[in-house]
Amino acid sequence: MSEQPQEPIQSTEQQQEKKEQIVTPWDVDAGDDGVDYGKLINQFGSQAISEDLLERIERVTKKPVHHFLKRGIFFSHRDMHKLLDYYEQGKPFYLYTGRGPSSESMHLGHLIPFMFTKYLQDVFDVPLVVQMTDDEKFLWKKLELEEAHRLTYENAKDIIACGFDMSKTFIFSNLDYMGHLYRTVLEIEKSVTCSQVKGVFGFEDSDNIGKFSFPAIQAAPSFYTSFPHIFPETAEDKKKQKKTKRKNDIMCLIPCAIDQDPYFRVTRDVAPKLGFQKPALIHSKFFPALQGANKKMSSSSDTSSIFLTDTPKQIKDKINKHAFSGGGATKEDQEKYGANLAVDVPYQYLQFFLEDDVQLEDIREKYSTGKMLTGQVKGALIDLLQKMVAEHQERRKKITDEQVKEFLSVRKLSFTMPTKKEVVPSATTEAKKE
Amino acid sequence: MSEQPQEPIQSTEQQQEKKEQIVTPWDVDAGDDGVDYGKLINQFGSQAISEDLLERIERVTKKPVHHFLKRGIFFSHRDMHKLLDYYEQGKPFYLYTGRGPSSESMHLGHLIPFMFTKYLQDVFDVPLVVQMTDDEKFLWKKLELEEAHRLTYENAKDIIACGFDMSKTFIFSNLDYMGHLYRTVLEIEKSVTCSQVKGVFGFEDSDNIGKFSFPAIQAAPSFYTSFPHIFPETAEDKKKQKKTKRKNDIMCLIPCAIDQDPYFRVTRDVAPKLGFQKPALIHSKFFPALQGANKKMSSSSDTSSIFLTDTPKQIKDKINKHAFSGGGATKEDQEKYGANLAVDVPYQYLQFFLEDDVQLEDIREKYSTGKMLTGQVKGALIDLLQKMVAEHQERRKKITDEQVKEFLSVRKLSFTMPTKKEVVPSATTEAKKE
Repeated sequence: MSEQPQEPIQSTEQQQEKKEQIVTPWDVDAGDDGVDYGKLINQFGSQAISEDLLERIERVTKKPVHHFLKRGIFFSHRDMHKLLDYYEQGKPFYLYTGRGPSSESMHLGHLIPFMFTKYLQDVFDVPLVVQMTDDEKFLWKKLELEEAHRLTYENAKDIIACGFDMSKTFIFSNLDYMGHLYRTVLEIEKSVTCSQVKGVFGFEDSDNIGKFSFPAIQAAPSFYTSFPHIFPETAEDKKKQKKTKRKNDIMCLIPCAIDQDPYFRVTRDVAPKLGFQKPALIHSKFFPALQGANKKMSSSSDTSSIFLTDTPKQIKDKINKHAFSGGGATKEDQEKYGANLAVDVPYQYLQFFLEDDVQLEDIREKYSTGKMLTGQVKGALIDLLQKMVAEHQERRKKITDEQVKEFLSVRKLSFTMPTKKEVVPSATTEAKKE
Repeated sequence: MSEQPQEPIQSTEQQQEKKEQIVTPWDVDAGDDGVDYGKLINQFGSQAISEDLLERIERVTKKPVHHFLKRGIFFSHRDMHKLLDYYEQGKPFYLYTGRGPSSESMHLGHLIPFMFTKYLQDVFDVPLVVQMTDDEKFLWKKLELEEAHRLTYENAKDIIACGFDMSKTFIFSNLDYMGHLYRTVLEIEKSVTCSQVKGVFGFEDSDNIGKFSFPAIQAAPSFYTSFPHIFPETAEDKKKQKKTKRKNDIMCLIPCAIDQDPYFRVTRDVAPKLGFQKPALIHSKFFPALQGANKKMSSSSDTSSIFLTDTPKQIKDKINKHAFSGGGATKEDQEKYGANLAVDVPYQYLQFFLEDDVQLEDIREKYSTGKMLTGQVKGALIDLLQKMVAEHQERRKKITDEQVKEFLSVRKLSFTMPTKKEVVPSATTEAKKE
């Protein structure tokens, strides 16, 4: 499979083994064995999340880390140590994540960054901004503008249903918020060339001109001047727009799937030129499609995805029919050889959503050694997802249109600038400066 | 001078005579004999303004045409006959012009489109929108954002001092108005490729990404959906954004210098795809620099321009010292051969600003035949400009910051949709459909 490599390949060892993986904000296509995340870290130049970092986060937050961290689902980062240094010094930071509202219903994979962001908001007690890129979806898809705008409000309900604190969370539609964002967007646009976005995103001369400036729009919320209502004491900076006079200690932490990293590489390049801190990043793996771990779940395929609107019966049927099994081909094979968990979709979904470590370990042990059959693992997953999705639907149903409007309204957040943290010092508190 | 033509040249006859002329929104460089406007009409594919069109405008407006029209200073157009057809049928149109606020003080040349636009507003009684492209100036120049924004307000005072009717005029800063403009901008961006803007504007991959999307921002005000507060009955269209449901009878007329035409060629290309009428255009010649008619007046050169802030003494000194004369080299030569009016800057300025036809004709006749000397013509021009600039300064001084804010505020205009005009029909009323 290595005859026709599509790109220069960094790791020649792996080249022998599998097809080159393609990971861009619009396309994820891994080899048959799934995405090689170690290789992605090399390709993208980010850092693996180490045991040390996990310990440090627990020490700083005084809470156990989220199981997404413990299980390596969030696996890569940029500048997390610097962010924690700042946090310990009592400097403010905020969270920024986003969603491209292209479909009526979000699927399970879309929940991952929001579930994790909710954890970060809870343990750090910081403001969160959520960019709904309805403009991006309009530019890239066959979609009317106002349809994209309507989907922003539909998807916002699903995001709010993840339990975000309204007093600390600002969700915004680019279509509605551009008036506020535009100055920061312009500053970024002026610092990024056409060549750069062609190189990073693969745009071509036949692409529409909106695509070329969109990276500046996704970058802008990484800089606090985009939100004078959240950082009112910095509104003065915005007015002056003197780079040298900027409050240079407000950082931004961006939890996102690894495919969004190209946007933030551009953002981090630009940041110092504009007098801002580079945003820190924390990257998740992809949520696999039902058919297997070499594709991420996509909302354009009905049979590859479990949607947040699915009924218990739909969830059951999809998992039973479509979830790729790493178990033996026959009962006898499974009992004899056990399941290949690396490719088993039901087990991987459990890793994402089954919070109970003991129960998960029990399934891992039994399933991999043949003491459990695929049907039983699927059964456990069906029970879990039916409950989880039903609870989500229940929470979503209770969210009123007024609440959505409130989340999307430009207003002060009840965020208080932090103070110096009392953290028990330790050897590993030493930040690795990049 | 024809050894190294810089571009394919359409008119081979003229090729023998002079250097190729370059006319873009950022650069005007004509041959030694000045800009060949007939050739520009061919290059750009616009139409010359004919005697028929002038007559038709007089008939429709029941007023004499502006001396800029009579004297060929506005010399080229696109779709003026269609606009007049529509106007006669009682369909609404509005005026759109703009200004890039890059300098503290505007010069005489900057007044031309505004003086003409004021005439159009007066005789047609229609709303006017004025785009201040502070974003463009930030993207192209070494200029801070808020400095560009401040210049918008400074320049707006000069524009208002031209006498626009506040109840029918909306001036806007792109920095402030982008929230309202963004949907229309996006629709245009989606319909224009990177190749197209490279072809039309000569952008290169090393240019910043903001430049690539700017043509959509200058195009947007040509479409009425950018101004729901001016066309409230069409706000519904904006919400639906269904191209097929748009009110397709609201036209826009853009008075501008001919170098801005490339922006509106792109705009006119896009219009039918988005369900809009193509904007009509009416083009002016350039206002020449003091040094001669082969350069347009530029605000970056202090000695080539007369500024609206100049004192009577400055005006006198600049004209006496720098205004290029087409008169004879000596008193004797001038009396013997007369002046070459085609290159004489004082005479050309008089053509722009001396409204009295009889007086202008008297000067033309005497100066060209040697009965008048350059000093006398310069003296007449100095008197005229000293008075004109002083009056402008007087009007500008009286404009309060509150009035400027009001002109720039998003509000209803007291525009009433027109009714079918009673115009005496004539053979020349037949529109030339393009």
